[in-house]
Amino acid sequence: VQEFDVIKKYLTFKSYDKNIILNTGDDAAVLTIPAKTQLVTSSDTFLENTHFLQGTPPADIAYKSFMVNLSDMAAMGAVPQWTMLNLTLPAKDDKWLCEFSNQLKEILTNYKISLIGGDTTQGPLSITITIYGFIKDNQFLTRAGAKTDDSIYISNSTGEAALGLLMLQDKYPKNDYFVQKLQRPQAQNKLGLLLKDYANSCIDISDGLICDLNHILLSSNKGAELNLKNLITTSSLNDYCSEDQTKNLILYGGDDYELLWTLSKEKEKKFLKKIKETTVSVQKIGIITDNIGIKENNKKIKIKGWSHF
Amino acid sequence: VQEFDVIKKYLTFKSYDKNIILNTGDDAAVLTIPAKTQLVTSSDTFLENTHFLQGTPPADIAYKSFMVNLSDMAAMGAVPQWTMLNLTLPAKDDKWLCEFSNQLKEILTNYKISLIGGDTTQGPLSITITIYGFIKDNQFLTRAGAKTDDSIYISNSTGEAALGLLMLQDKYPKNDYFVQKLQRPQAQNKLGLLLKDYANSCIDISDGLICDLNHILLSSNKGAELNLKNLITTSSLNDYCSEDQTKNLILYGGDDYELLWTLSKEKEKKFLKKIKETTVSVQKIGIITDNIGIKENNKKIKIKGWSHF
Repeated sequence: VQEFDVIKKYLTFKSYDKNIILNTGDDAAVLTIPAKTQLVTSSDTFLENTHFLQGTPPADIAYKSFMVNLSDMAAMGAVPQWTMLNLTLPAKDDKWLCEFSNQLKEILTNYKISLIGGDTTQGPLSITITIYGFIKDNQFLTRAGAKTDDSIYISNSTGEAALGLLMLQDKYPKNDYFVQKLQRPQAQNKLGLLLKDYANSCIDISDGLICDLNHILLSSNKGAELNLKNLITTSSLNDYCSEDQTKNLILYGGDDYELLWTLSKEKEKKFLKKIKETTVSVQKIGIITDNIGIKENNKKIKIKGWSHF
Repeated sequence: VQEFDVIKKYLTFKSYDKNIILNTGDDAAVLTIPAKTQLVTSSDTFLENTHFLQGTPPADIAYKSFMVNLSDMAAMGAVPQWTMLNLTLPAKDDKWLCEFSNQLKEILTNYKISLIGGDTTQGPLSITITIYGFIKDNQFLTRAGAKTDDSIYISNSTGEAALGLLMLQDKYPKNDYFVQKLQRPQAQNKLGLLLKDYANSCIDISDGLICDLNHILLSSNKGAELNLKNLITTSSLNDYCSEDQTKNLILYGGDDYELLWTLSKEKEKKFLKKIKETTVSVQKIGIITDNIGIKENNKKIKIKGWSHF
């Protein structure tokens, strides 16, 4: 891969931002952070056979790898501004690069995000994306702020992406709705911005509902009492799975990129009123407790992670 | 690789910086940029068999992958502050991780750089490092500022790392000095900070002297007339190589991570006086011209890149 040519041909996009003083093409980017604003930044690597199946369309890879990073910004209540892309490709494949690049351009345009650097190298397919966002000073959401008696909410529902994966693995009859939930998750950035004014803690659900709830509980030194009845009975998974399978996917399936947050009783009413003005669907799934661990009907729920494949 | 355990055990270091509001362990890091300061950031991926030979000691991999990023900061005149590490490993290898981690800790301690995030994944060995540095508003060095009649300088000399690689490939009798130049390059961060007050343009030499000089010339829309006699006759390569081989390695060998910069006649004297107060050795190698292309004694010098292996 001739780095210079690939970047010039496929990875040069319009810049949206007068805060970019020096863009790609020098040894580093130079950026201005506006007054009373903090930088929020994270980085994730995506690998074939670990984060996406071999043969996944390049547009889906571009889409999802960016959505996962946008979801980190959503979970912080941050507005994404800039991104770096480190792309490792087995060979210079013009068709692959063209499809990847077109999807990338669409996302960057929709979100008004500018590509400020990175590199291209030749090797086993791998994508590392670093994202840079803004928040007003100290107005960020964190995993560490959950308080006893906080209500626990999630956006939409969970388990759909995991069922999509099982469908791609031919373990269930294929249905495009669920496959799209896996390949084309939608980061909840608007919700994240709204939650900043209400939530005590927040995380995005990438490792599974229970695993990511547990991240909040560990960071906040709290426990949780869940009531999952409504989440399970209203789940779209019921059309395909037994009740046990549905519950298992809802609790432990990953890759949904919904948000999970906690808020105090005082703010709950105002929040529910506010959220009705939007198109986002939210569900209360339990409350924060002083007792460590996660329970439902006084029974401990097992805490375990989600391994993609 | 159990991401959480690896990060906790091997990749958790002391934070040096009160500008870090939220560190590793949340969905993203939150950072404050001081007043009148801009963010300088870049990212590079290092692959086995592309950037380092298979079997390279993990400490050397850690050392070099960070030095290459520190060198980008040097070329910008920026002070490195924070870093992200995205580490992909074939398996959880405790010995490997321990050696990598110890070297990483030493570099971060020496440079007072804080690790603020990243991830670990399982796959073919790959290291992506993103670096974040500071400059005073608009006081950065760039590739684009070379002016006609500027003097062209480099620090120390070039070609030594390339000879080290040839030695590792058993094409020359091994000598540790040159192998260390390849495996343990020294980024010129102090020089970069000093150059900010003098240089019109600057780049670090990673792709080779001619290739990186050409990056400055393309960005500045200029040419260069070189005088390489002194550089060649004083080169340490002469003990091992013919005159032609020496010249070839000096011009086209990569991975030295020295700086190349241009400065006006007016600032040259002051600069040379200032540099004498330091331990850095510098060499004048030519002047910037209006005529596009690179010449020596009125003969065109071929422009070509450096492919590592």
